[in-house]
Amino acid sequence: MPKILVIYYSRTGNTKKMAELITQAIEQTGAEAELKQVADVNVDEIIEYDAIVMGSPTYYGAPAYQIRKLIDESVKFHGKLAGKIGGAFSSSANIGGGNETTILNIINAWLVHGMVVIGISSGDHYGPVSINAVDDRSSLICKNYGNKIGNLAKKLFP
Amino acid sequence: MPKILVIYYSRTGNTKKMAELITQAIEQTGAEAELKQVADVNVDEIIEYDAIVMGSPTYYGAPAYQIRKLIDESVKFHGKLAGKIGGAFSSSANIGGGNETTILNIINAWLVHGMVVIGISSGDHYGPVSINAVDDRSSLICKNYGNKIGNLAKKLFP
Amino acid sequence: MPKILVIYYSRTGNTKKMAELITQAIEQTGAEAELKQVADVNVDEIIEYDAIVMGSPTYYGAPAYQIRKLIDESVKFHGKLAGKIGGAFSSSANIGGGNETTILNIINAWLVHGMVVIGISSGDHYGPVSINAVDDRSSLICKNYGNKIGNLAKKLFP
Amino acid sequence: MPKILVIYYSRTGNTKKMAELITQAIEQTGAEAELKQVADVNVDEIIEYDAIVMGSPTYYGAPAYQIRKLIDESVKFHGKLAGKIGGAFSSSANIGGGNETTILNIINAWLVHGMVVIGISSGDHYGPVSINAVDDRSSLICKNYGNKIGNLAKKLFP
Repeated sequence: MPKILVIYYSRTGNTKKMAELITQAIEQTGAEAELKQVADVNVDEIIEYDAIVMGSPTYYGAPAYQIRKLIDESVKFHGKLAGKIGGAFSSSANIGGGNETTILNIINAWLVHGMVVIGISSGDHYGPVSINAVDDRSSLICKNYGNKIGNLAKKLFP
Repeated sequence: MPKILVIYYSRTGNTKKMAELITQAIEQTGAEAELKQVADVNVDEIIEYDAIVMGSPTYYGAPAYQIRKLIDESVKFHGKLAGKIGGAFSSSANIGGGNETTILNIINAWLVHGMVVIGISSGDHYGPVSINAVDDRSSLICKNYGNKIGNLAKKLFP
Repeated sequence: MPKILVIYYSRTGNTKKMAELITQAIEQTGAEAELKQVADVNVDEIIEYDAIVMGSPTYYGAPAYQIRKLIDESVKFHGKLAGKIGGAFSSSANIGGGNETTILNIINAWLVHGMVVIGISSGDHYGPVSINAVDDRSSLICKNYGNKIGNLAKKLFP
Repeated sequence: MPKILVIYYSRTGNTKKMAELITQAIEQTGAEAELKQVADVNVDEIIEYDAIVMGSPTYYGAPAYQIRKLIDESVKFHGKLAGKIGGAFSSSANIGGGNETTILNIINAWLVHGMVVIGISSGDHYGPVSINAVDDRSSLICKNYGNKIGNLAKKLFP
């Protein structure tokens, strides 16, 4: 079974809640999922996973610097994550407040690593977005996304 | 007084409504504003304006091709629009449905032209976004944006 | 064997050359590849392929409107392309001239379709870029990219 | 005379060199320019400037986390930087290696602050890019960009 790491940074709890929903949905596909806040992640452990999903609040159109710090450190595995799966999600205070650019910032980092990314045809297309607290809409998209990530991982890492 | 052109493509009327609100707000600053749907714009006339604001529904994370066609044609003025002001707005079916990437697609075109762009510190930061029909939230942001564009134009083209 | 469609728009021949290199590299993986210029693609045929790779010159930070027109038309298959693979490439006149935003514009469209995308860990990370004529550098990246796309398709569509 | 702050993060010296060229070009417009590495910038001082130009190497398609940390901290002035000018530049190891997304990441942050941004019609359109060491091409674009920033600042903050 593929092993998937869900990493988040959260201050108000909104991004954390999204991370939990995504983690549960991944587990329901049969894949193994681990949930960690970014402060508890040692960069050395990311190499052990088949997929990494990362979430952050939207700060000035991008993830919190703590998330970017971990991505900067991941350079030590450059080339070795190629072919693994990457995902992203974000909570934000405003509808057009930078949530898409935050998610795409993380997605782009996965592409630079040569990783594989998947979109969502219904709902938030680049990755789940919550405007402030997680509501029914964003909860559903988090579950769909976790399901998609889990199933793609099972196909690529059987 | 500066002359500002607001161009839109709209099928359901949502983007058109946003265009109207932005146009009215520009006029309230004392700047001259003209509103046109993209089908009625001849590329030759864009050179006559000090600012161009362009809006589109979100189609696969980008403006409708009719908007891109006009931008492609604007190459005939390459370098001659430098220093003018550009703006963008979008309506979309989903919160994380590509509205930011649509707006930034237009903003990027203005930057390629060497134009000047302004963001919004409260509300939708890159340009006004409406999720489906224009509501009080998006209406307010359209008005603020028109106001900002009009006032910046008055400063740069007194 | 998976079937892959490579679509391009080209005026000077640079993007066409990239398309040919990518197509050949896909075929060398054993996957079936078809090469078409966008004017010859009927949107109805895209559903028959397991992967679609699309290339365009960089026009104001985005693909030519002819490419966007086909993407707009692809809405008739919305949801039905989910899980297929998407790729993108671009030729451009300048190093920082919008080639990345052009590629990401196409990549974002694939994500909106719920499709799967892969990055490149060495070289142009989001997709192959050629600055003007295809040189050894961009030629190599086109070959690597075709190889990656072909092999991913073989994994996902055995 | 307007006061402009040029902030950079640099490890190999490439981004620093770009920062110096931009600073000199700003000074030649008659505007006042100050050059600081990000480690020496206290967020409290950014409010004193009419324009902020920020540069970073390209790390996984985005600025170094040290740059994002300063941007995160700038939230204490949210709304108070509106109308000021922002700029961005980047050095990178590869042509399609994420330099545009790095620059646009900073540009987007300025838009979230409600700031004013200007593009470059000839050369690197979103902001100056250097592929590895600064060469004649990137040097010229840095000078043009500094000139544009300085002149726009003189118009908006006479």
